[in-house]
Amino acid sequence: MSEDAILARVLAGLRRDEAMILGPGDDCAVLEFGGRWLLAAVDQVVSDVHYQAGDTPPEAIAGKVLKRNLSDIAAMGGIPRWALLALAATARPDDWFERFFAGLEAAAKAFDVTLAGGDLGALPGPAAAEYAALTILGEVEPEKLCRRDRAEAGEALLVTGELGNTLASGHHLDFTPRLAEGRFLAGRWTRCMMDLSDGLGRDLRRLGRASQVGFELDVSALPRRAGADARGAIGDGEDYELVFTVAPDRVEALLASWPFPATLSVIGRVTKAAPGSLALVNADTVLSEEEMDGYEHFRA
Amino acid sequence: MSEDAILARVLAGLRRDEAMILGPGDDCAVLEFGGRWLLAAVDQVVSDVHYQAGDTPPEAIAGKVLKRNLSDIAAMGGIPRWALLALAATARPDDWFERFFAGLEAAAKAFDVTLAGGDLGALPGPAAAEYAALTILGEVEPEKLCRRDRAEAGEALLVTGELGNTLASGHHLDFTPRLAEGRFLAGRWTRCMMDLSDGLGRDLRRLGRASQVGFELDVSALPRRAGADARGAIGDGEDYELVFTVAPDRVEALLASWPFPATLSVIGRVTKAAPGSLALVNADTVLSEEEMDGYEHFRA
Repeated sequence: MSEDAILARVLAGLRRDEAMILGPGDDCAVLEFGGRWLLAAVDQVVSDVHYQAGDTPPEAIAGKVLKRNLSDIAAMGGIPRWALLALAATARPDDWFERFFAGLEAAAKAFDVTLAGGDLGALPGPAAAEYAALTILGEVEPEKLCRRDRAEAGEALLVTGELGNTLASGHHLDFTPRLAEGRFLAGRWTRCMMDLSDGLGRDLRRLGRASQVGFELDVSALPRRAGADARGAIGDGEDYELVFTVAPDRVEALLASWPFPATLSVIGRVTKAAPGSLALVNADTVLSEEEMDGYEHFRA
Repeated sequence: MSEDAILARVLAGLRRDEAMILGPGDDCAVLEFGGRWLLAAVDQVVSDVHYQAGDTPPEAIAGKVLKRNLSDIAAMGGIPRWALLALAATARPDDWFERFFAGLEAAAKAFDVTLAGGDLGALPGPAAAEYAALTILGEVEPEKLCRRDRAEAGEALLVTGELGNTLASGHHLDFTPRLAEGRFLAGRWTRCMMDLSDGLGRDLRRLGRASQVGFELDVSALPRRAGADARGAIGDGEDYELVFTVAPDRVEALLASWPFPATLSVIGRVTKAAPGSLALVNADTVLSEEEMDGYEHFRA
């Protein structure tokens, strides 16, 4: 069973809460507290899964686990506030921990986040290994909240930045979470946004299922990172870009007013096709079912 | 360097935040949000560190990681609200995850907590291993907040429940976090409380350093769990009981009004001795430096 399938079964059985504006299943939960909307999300990095163990500077690992979570805050249209970190590691020199926390603090400062809590633990085993889980807390105004279940057929589909080749390029460690872009877009241009962490194809399917819509994806319009082909732009994870929908008659105005150095690309549109389905147009290669993660696709 | 030493160096370098009533270093952080006080803490469990890998039912692992965090909320005098879970595991049958989340949900329901978010990840390696980190969010009223740095010389030192022999007895999985007891005590009887997760001796040293006080510990008065000797009552971790201080002239009234089945014991007093020092009285055995975790100790 896939992570999505396990989560779907688990989520169906969970109790809800009157103060829970939005529960598990989006990029962040939204919790009403003191009359304001608190954002909360957790994300983890594991050595030899999310980066090469022993080979990645501790500063970069710490920055990655924080920035992954900041990308979730960006996707909701929110502002990050506090972080809590759990870190477990096999035995290593003391300066490894100091470097890890120096990296975490530098990234926190860069994005105006305060570390509010932490827990250090030991991992068994002789080989260098780490596990880090970070919980981010943030805030969003009700009128700015963006969520996965708000896409409507006929809207345009847009993405920030470039896609694919995230591993070899080092992007998976070096990325900048799109917080400023998310704030700019939220409420004013879109109410439906998510961040791309598991690959455009897989994440769009999630967005489509949540909104009960399909997507038509213009493969020739995908903004590819240097070294990325169409397969990579659709299948590679860890882009940490924002994908979102915009009313079709407002796209030109958005493109004209976009103030950020990151590119902004129209990559398709929302359709009434089967929820979560993805129809590729202008594709010059056939993608396998595995590459498409089971998508329905068409060739130009 | 010990965890405490690493943390002390790390904490000294962290930025603060105007809305942070209490930062890292206590059982929970206290964050002002919407005019109310939010509690936040993170704690983790790792297979073969906190329990036997492959041998512990997934329901019990899930319950443990939630209840450890609830014990931190109890120590602040607070009420738990929401939990976020990061879970990484090596390959295993699908029903393992279902059982894990069923156990988590059962424990959450028992303590009126709602699961607000989660992340599932993979761990590399062939042997069964898991890593779970849980962040708890709660609430406390300003007049009920209890913290580690409020002990005053002359106060009595008390503890709930029984201490020691936590592993062989199964207590480390079967414990009940002292949420009701914490609420009863907070503000009315004490303003200085912490939970015992790393052993009475080690945790009292932390409490003493935070409050700049010493403790005199009456070894003959320690409430020992069946099978625990004095060494175990002082040195064993994972008691998940509450230790707190009370004005000496109010101890009798507290003992007379205590409404819970868990025992309540006066185990010593707060002194003006060196911060974090622990003087043992009425001890019938000599404890080694290692057993005492470097404590200064006296024999009766």
